[in-house]
Amino acid sequence: MKVIIDLCVVPIGVGVSLGSYIAECERVFLKAGLKTQLHGYGTNIEGEWDEVMQAVKECHEVLHKMGVPRISSTLRVGTRIDREQTIDDKIRSVQDKLR
Amino acid sequence: MKVIIDLCVVPIGVGVSLGSYIAECERVFLKAGLKTQLHGYGTNIEGEWDEVMQAVKECHEVLHKMGVPRISSTLRVGTRIDREQTIDDKIRSVQDKLR
Amino acid sequence: MKVIIDLCVVPIGVGVSLGSYIAECERVFLKAGLKTQLHGYGTNIEGEWDEVMQAVKECHEVLHKMGVPRISSTLRVGTRIDREQTIDDKIRSVQDKLR
Amino acid sequence: MKVIIDLCVVPIGVGVSLGSYIAECERVFLKAGLKTQLHGYGTNIEGEWDEVMQAVKECHEVLHKMGVPRISSTLRVGTRIDREQTIDDKIRSVQDKLR
Repeated sequence: MKVIIDLCVVPIGVGVSLGSYIAECERVFLKAGLKTQLHGYGTNIEGEWDEVMQAVKECHEVLHKMGVPRISSTLRVGTRIDREQTIDDKIRSVQDKLR
Repeated sequence: MKVIIDLCVVPIGVGVSLGSYIAECERVFLKAGLKTQLHGYGTNIEGEWDEVMQAVKECHEVLHKMGVPRISSTLRVGTRIDREQTIDDKIRSVQDKLR
Repeated sequence: MKVIIDLCVVPIGVGVSLGSYIAECERVFLKAGLKTQLHGYGTNIEGEWDEVMQAVKECHEVLHKMGVPRISSTLRVGTRIDREQTIDDKIRSVQDKLR
Repeated sequence: MKVIIDLCVVPIGVGVSLGSYIAECERVFLKAGLKTQLHGYGTNIEGEWDEVMQAVKECHEVLHKMGVPRISSTLRVGTRIDREQTIDDKIRSVQDKLR
C-alpha cells in the first residue's frame, strides 16, 4: 500500500531551536531512500506504507538517542486505491486549477 | 518504545456519514488488544509503537476493503524516555491542576 | 457557523511537564463558556466559529504571558451544513454501531 | 501576534477529486494578501493571527457555498515571542544544517 504522509516532529524539553533535530530527521528519510519535500511546517514523504512508517519510527528513536526526552509529532496520512498519485501530482493538480 | 497516539480517520468518497467506518476502526483496535479511548474527534491509543502503528495500517486496509477509495488520517504521536505515562496519567495530570 | 474542533497545545522551551499549561487553556475555555471534553491528547471544543477560535487565540496569548517562548498547536476543525451535530452525537453515532 | 500555520482542508461528501476545492482556498489566501506556500499535503500561511484565521474561516464558508456539505481541516499553528521567524527562515534553518 502506497502512502503520502506529512510529518511534523516537535522535540520537547530541548529549548526552542529545533532546526538541528529536524535536519536529523531529514537525514533518516534520505538514508531510507524515500522521496521527501521539506516545507515550512513539516515534510511530505511518499513511499510504501511500511518503509515510510519505519522511517517515522527511526526519527523518534534517533532524536531520543540525541537526548530529546519527549517528542510530539503530527502526521497526515493519505492512501487511495482508485488511482496512483504522487506528491508532485497533488501539487500540479491544484496549480493547474489556479491558472 | 511505548507510544500514545491520537488518530482521526477521514474516509473520502463515501458520503458524509462516517460513523460506521470509525466503528470498524475501533473493532481493529479492540481485536489488537490495544487500550483506546474514543472521543468526539478521534481516538487515543496506547501501546508498543509497532503494535499501535500496525493497527493504524489495518484501519486503512479494512476501510479500503469496505470500498472506501481514499482516506486521509491525522495522527498525533507522543513518545517520551524520561518516564512512563499512560493516557489516564495525562488526563489526571491536567484535572489535578484544575482543582 | 458552528464548529467542532480538537485542539492540542504544545508549549516549547519550558521543559517536559506541560500539564499546568494545558490546565490554563482549559480555564480559558471554561471562562468563555464553551462546551469542551478533555481527552488524553487534546480537547474537543464546540461552539460558534468566532468564539471557539477566539478562545484558541487566548490560549496562545495566556501561555506566552506565562513565559512560554514558543507554541506549536494542532487543530482538527469540523464544519457541516447538512445537519447539526454535537460532540456527544458524534461519539454516540460510533458507539451505537459498535453494539 | 504573528502566526505561521499549516492548513490541510478535506472536503467530505463531494467525491475523491479535491483539487478544485483546494485551488479555491488558495484564491482566498491570495485575495487576503497572505504569504503562502503550497505543498503536497497542505499550505503554509504566515501573517497576523486574526487575518490568517479569518482566511481559514473564509475557506470553510466558500467551500460550503460551493455545495460541500462537510469539511474536516487540520491545522498546525505556531507562535513565538522569543524572535521573529518566517516560513523561509524555518526552511533555511533546516537546509543550512543539512549542508
